[in-house]
Amino acid sequence: MSGRRSPVDLPGGVCAVPEIAAAGVAAGLKPSGRLDLAIVDAGRVVAAAAVQTTNQVKAAPVLLTSRHVANGRARAVLLNAGSANVCTGPDGMALAEESTVAVGRELGCEPADVLVCSTGVIGVPIPRGPFLAGIPAAAAARSRDGGSRAAKAIMTTDTFPKEAAVRVEDGTGTCVVGGMAKGAGMLEPTMATMLAVVTTDAPVQGPVLRSCVREVVAHTFGRVSVDACQSTNDAVVVLATGSAARPPSLSAFKDGLTAVCARLAEALVRDGEGARKLVRLRVTGARSEADAVGVARAIARSVLVRTAIAGADPNWGRILAAAGAGPVPFDPARVAVTFGNVTVCRFGVVASFDRGLASRALSGREVTVTVDLGLGPAEATLLTCDLTHDYVTINAEYTT
Amino acid sequence: MSGRRSPVDLPGGVCAVPEIAAAGVAAGLKPSGRLDLAIVDAGRVVAAAAVQTTNQVKAAPVLLTSRHVANGRARAVLLNAGSANVCTGPDGMALAEESTVAVGRELGCEPADVLVCSTGVIGVPIPRGPFLAGIPAAAAARSRDGGSRAAKAIMTTDTFPKEAAVRVEDGTGTCVVGGMAKGAGMLEPTMATMLAVVTTDAPVQGPVLRSCVREVVAHTFGRVSVDACQSTNDAVVVLATGSAARPPSLSAFKDGLTAVCARLAEALVRDGEGARKLVRLRVTGARSEADAVGVARAIARSVLVRTAIAGADPNWGRILAAAGAGPVPFDPARVAVTFGNVTVCRFGVVASFDRGLASRALSGREVTVTVDLGLGPAEATLLTCDLTHDYVTINAEYTT
Repeated sequence: MSGRRSPVDLPGGVCAVPEIAAAGVAAGLKPSGRLDLAIVDAGRVVAAAAVQTTNQVKAAPVLLTSRHVANGRARAVLLNAGSANVCTGPDGMALAEESTVAVGRELGCEPADVLVCSTGVIGVPIPRGPFLAGIPAAAAARSRDGGSRAAKAIMTTDTFPKEAAVRVEDGTGTCVVGGMAKGAGMLEPTMATMLAVVTTDAPVQGPVLRSCVREVVAHTFGRVSVDACQSTNDAVVVLATGSAARPPSLSAFKDGLTAVCARLAEALVRDGEGARKLVRLRVTGARSEADAVGVARAIARSVLVRTAIAGADPNWGRILAAAGAGPVPFDPARVAVTFGNVTVCRFGVVASFDRGLASRALSGREVTVTVDLGLGPAEATLLTCDLTHDYVTINAEYTT
Repeated sequence: MSGRRSPVDLPGGVCAVPEIAAAGVAAGLKPSGRLDLAIVDAGRVVAAAAVQTTNQVKAAPVLLTSRHVANGRARAVLLNAGSANVCTGPDGMALAEESTVAVGRELGCEPADVLVCSTGVIGVPIPRGPFLAGIPAAAAARSRDGGSRAAKAIMTTDTFPKEAAVRVEDGTGTCVVGGMAKGAGMLEPTMATMLAVVTTDAPVQGPVLRSCVREVVAHTFGRVSVDACQSTNDAVVVLATGSAARPPSLSAFKDGLTAVCARLAEALVRDGEGARKLVRLRVTGARSEADAVGVARAIARSVLVRTAIAGADPNWGRILAAAGAGPVPFDPARVAVTFGNVTVCRFGVVASFDRGLASRALSGREVTVTVDLGLGPAEATLLTCDLTHDYVTINAEYTT
């Protein structure tokens, strides 16, 4: 017996981890006057790692955070909604730098120990006055109870705040992992396109922390697709305080990190813009896991597949067409497609199935689509959502 | 003076070319009872070429046409709507073969001289009885006036039939090119995803015809994107009778072929599912034409860009984000974005522009978006359309 148990859910998010303080304030960056500026503070410089967007167009805070986290250490994360601070030129970078100076002044740390994340409209400068004035207010407001206000402050088109926390424990010891995230469009490749801050008291640092985070992000945030659009501001930032008195094994920590990231990733898709259905797209029978992910991604990118699911239309041919247009080779004559537990296609041709049952399998709030390639033992699951009228409404009218 | 002139528009489509007969009949393949079976007959075996889908999932008629056109010769093309005859297994292939036998019997030619194209729902068999019964009816109905009925018979979600024809002439001689096509969803890469039949009396054949067709298709049907979904049934089939008494130069013929294919391609996008706007997406300042096309395709694939255009929202940041997520390297700090003639982004940052004017530039039935990469002399234009509520409606309810 290794003494390992499944991660146990805890209430809250980033502040579920001892010592972590957070705040969300309304600095006047959102026209609505809602909470729009958040801070997460570890109280001292701790181990840190980040995975950020691979988009060629990178926001100023993405570039600055890359520099600041390069030494594997940080104390705090400042996050704002309302403007993404991307395509804002040297002024945008100067403002991002200035904001880390302001946070450093408030917390008594170096600017280089402050990481920054922004989300909102591209190309619109963050209003300098309100932003810089909000920083002392956010710093002053931070507390051990501030996690949920921080999670609210980073929302843009999100309809609910996203938090998750777990305790993991094995024969060796125990640790806590907590996190918050925001979506809800521009969610796709390489990693989910969003902001997330994850905290832990596990004593993991340097290259080990970095590689844990990369691996877990690839299997959680990296396995969702809302609209196949990759943002310029993606960031998952992890702060690891190392204060767990009797920490568990690295693998138990990774289980906890995976549990928190997976729950946040699922919440992102559930709250995908206009989404009414969470779609678990399972590709089985692949030659490799990478192949399974590649086929799933090609299918999830298809607006024809996603509109069909919105309409509970068991139009399985679109799934084959989407997979066939993708880069992963397969043999159409071996493919089976199953909606829920209704197999609609076998050996690449229509199966005998009840149309009503198949449509019903696509009608719930949660839908499972399984595509079996019949080629090998590997599989992967991607989370996506349906493409609805509301997505069009939200995105035809986002800046205007 | 070479004596070359621009192609001159002619009325009609495939039958604008001497000797070409066509028909469209209602064989009962569409539940609506509309025209659904078409034939285009050159009257004798002539030069032929086809460019077909690169999707891994290929329809039976695509596979069969590949075989039949391999010798560069054909007499007639049979086209049906209602079922795509893909993912229909050996029975689907047997029926496609049987249909060429039936056409051969009616026309007095070899089955191998008959090419076939199908469009409609994937995975649904073509009803054998009505299909085979329709063939003698279509053959009997064919006439020099049947082009427009043939163009109507291949429509699926198209809202209007698509025909084009031109006469080209240079110092050497003259020829005619005519064509018809159908869209209107699953329109994207490698070539537009649709069916087209193009006829000409130019005496071009064998590898020369094949390479002309490949090149022209790449620059016309290959430069449109409706929904980034690639179909299983794509085909552009060309029949060249060679009967022009005094044919023009090859390059004049190519001009004519380009004119017809470009007009049909534009019609496909104009009639893209739910489309209210034709978007000319021009990428300039690229290092190579391939780079320009690659950037344009990445932008056209973005549902965020296309919903913003639907809402006449000058949200240029989404264009940069979409380009940045694509494979072609560029420097965001050199990019300019112009809607109509309103430049909204210069050197990768917001330009001083009138928001009302920019929105108005996105409000017409035809919209031009120019993205200048500032890197080189090459450019390309891709045609796409906005993503509207109607696209979602059409595609959530296509089979049900």
